[in-house]
Amino acid sequence: MITGKTRLYAIIADPISHVRTPEVFNELFSLNCCDAVLVPIQVAPEGLEAVLTAFRTMKNLGGFVTTVPHKTAVAALCDELGDAGRAIGAVNAVRREADGRLIGNMFDGAGFVAGLRSQGYDPAGRRALLIGAGGAAAAIAFALAEAGVASLTVANRTRSKAEEIAVRIAKYFPARPIMVGNADPTDHDLVINATSLGLRADDPLPIDATMLTPAMTVAEIIMKPETTPLLAAAKARGCTIHYGRHMLDEQVRLIADFIGATGS
Amino acid sequence: MITGKTRLYAIIADPISHVRTPEVFNELFSLNCCDAVLVPIQVAPEGLEAVLTAFRTMKNLGGFVTTVPHKTAVAALCDELGDAGRAIGAVNAVRREADGRLIGNMFDGAGFVAGLRSQGYDPAGRRALLIGAGGAAAAIAFALAEAGVASLTVANRTRSKAEEIAVRIAKYFPARPIMVGNADPTDHDLVINATSLGLRADDPLPIDATMLTPAMTVAEIIMKPETTPLLAAAKARGCTIHYGRHMLDEQVRLIADFIGATGS
Repeated sequence: MITGKTRLYAIIADPISHVRTPEVFNELFSLNCCDAVLVPIQVAPEGLEAVLTAFRTMKNLGGFVTTVPHKTAVAALCDELGDAGRAIGAVNAVRREADGRLIGNMFDGAGFVAGLRSQGYDPAGRRALLIGAGGAAAAIAFALAEAGVASLTVANRTRSKAEEIAVRIAKYFPARPIMVGNADPTDHDLVINATSLGLRADDPLPIDATMLTPAMTVAEIIMKPETTPLLAAAKARGCTIHYGRHMLDEQVRLIADFIGATGS
Repeated sequence: MITGKTRLYAIIADPISHVRTPEVFNELFSLNCCDAVLVPIQVAPEGLEAVLTAFRTMKNLGGFVTTVPHKTAVAALCDELGDAGRAIGAVNAVRREADGRLIGNMFDGAGFVAGLRSQGYDPAGRRALLIGAGGAAAAIAFALAEAGVASLTVANRTRSKAEEIAVRIAKYFPARPIMVGNADPTDHDLVINATSLGLRADDPLPIDATMLTPAMTVAEIIMKPETTPLLAAAKARGCTIHYGRHMLDEQVRLIADFIGATGS
């Protein structure tokens, strides 16, 4: 029941009709007896600055979630950024302070790492191989470095994009070995697919599955299908597998904490 | 259930916690199977222009309702006004067109007249006495003139405010006799209290009830208490009485139609 006392949250995106954020957060608010509501706001890039200016003035707005195409532009418009958001240059959640300031951060990577931990896997001290160099990969690279991996190899078809991520992350974690390499899991403990390969049934595997060994953990960020061809192949080779949905589940929790949407 | 497809509406006010608009409209949306949600937005006068600028860019925003202290300022910021809004210089509902333009209008008066009609009373051809000269009184004066009253007398303690209303309305209905007078119901068919007298138990009556006669209809816009001391006195004198809640009920319907929130 929305009343005049209900705290307001939003997801801003364009297009908007496919987003699941309202369902996920409103269910969480309901479970937590939190008098808050999250609504979809469709805004094109040219309207973004006006919307953020207005958000600063909306006294009962707690914050917002953002996705395509706004993650980078919102980061540039925030008054303050968390480390992950600053390192990656993109955010997916913004908290509005009582004085109107907007504090953004990126939770894709923190959600992924929290997802690993929720399944009993601590990446600290592990040698990680990250396939892909898009926005999600960058966020995961940051979070893995922050979580204390022994080393991180970023592998991407376009090598320059992997190099860019390595340079960005190394600035924040200069002591951490961060390399650019090939999609070869040899001598790694944790293999993460952060490409979109696996979304479609006829996609090639992002790595050569015959190189996987039972000591490895293979993780996805793709949620549908739950068991991607890569995870199926990894399981067949005796690896531990980790589903994409854990990243989303934990990210929702982390964002709810961040935007102050867990109190009653 | 709010999804990415849900159409967005808002009530903007400051303070906001007392507004009942979200409950009233969200219940209406639910009854009409309309996939829409209305949320409270608290914005101070200094933030109003930024919020309206942002509203123009929000593609899934259908419109908004506004109340204290924004009715006059919003009218000035709209791209187009309906007659009542233009005449009074204040609006309480704004529709967002697909191209982002904001069309405002004032429904206080239209709601009052529709409320009379909903109870079988047509003000056309009646001699109306309107007590008060605030925003609600101005809106009701316009709507009564539009509805074709035989004459309208506006009575207010501060006479200049009544004169201002008479001048504003006369511009739109030059053929209608609109007078400024005293709170004397003699020779009137319809007496309307549009002051706040009656909200508190120890308020004096807005008119001398001994001058009421059984042929008169006495109407309130005060909703709580439902039977104000004026209505009680009018009933005791044999008048037909008309409750304040009818104005709100009909206004909600009219605003929902206006902002396009009745379709499915």
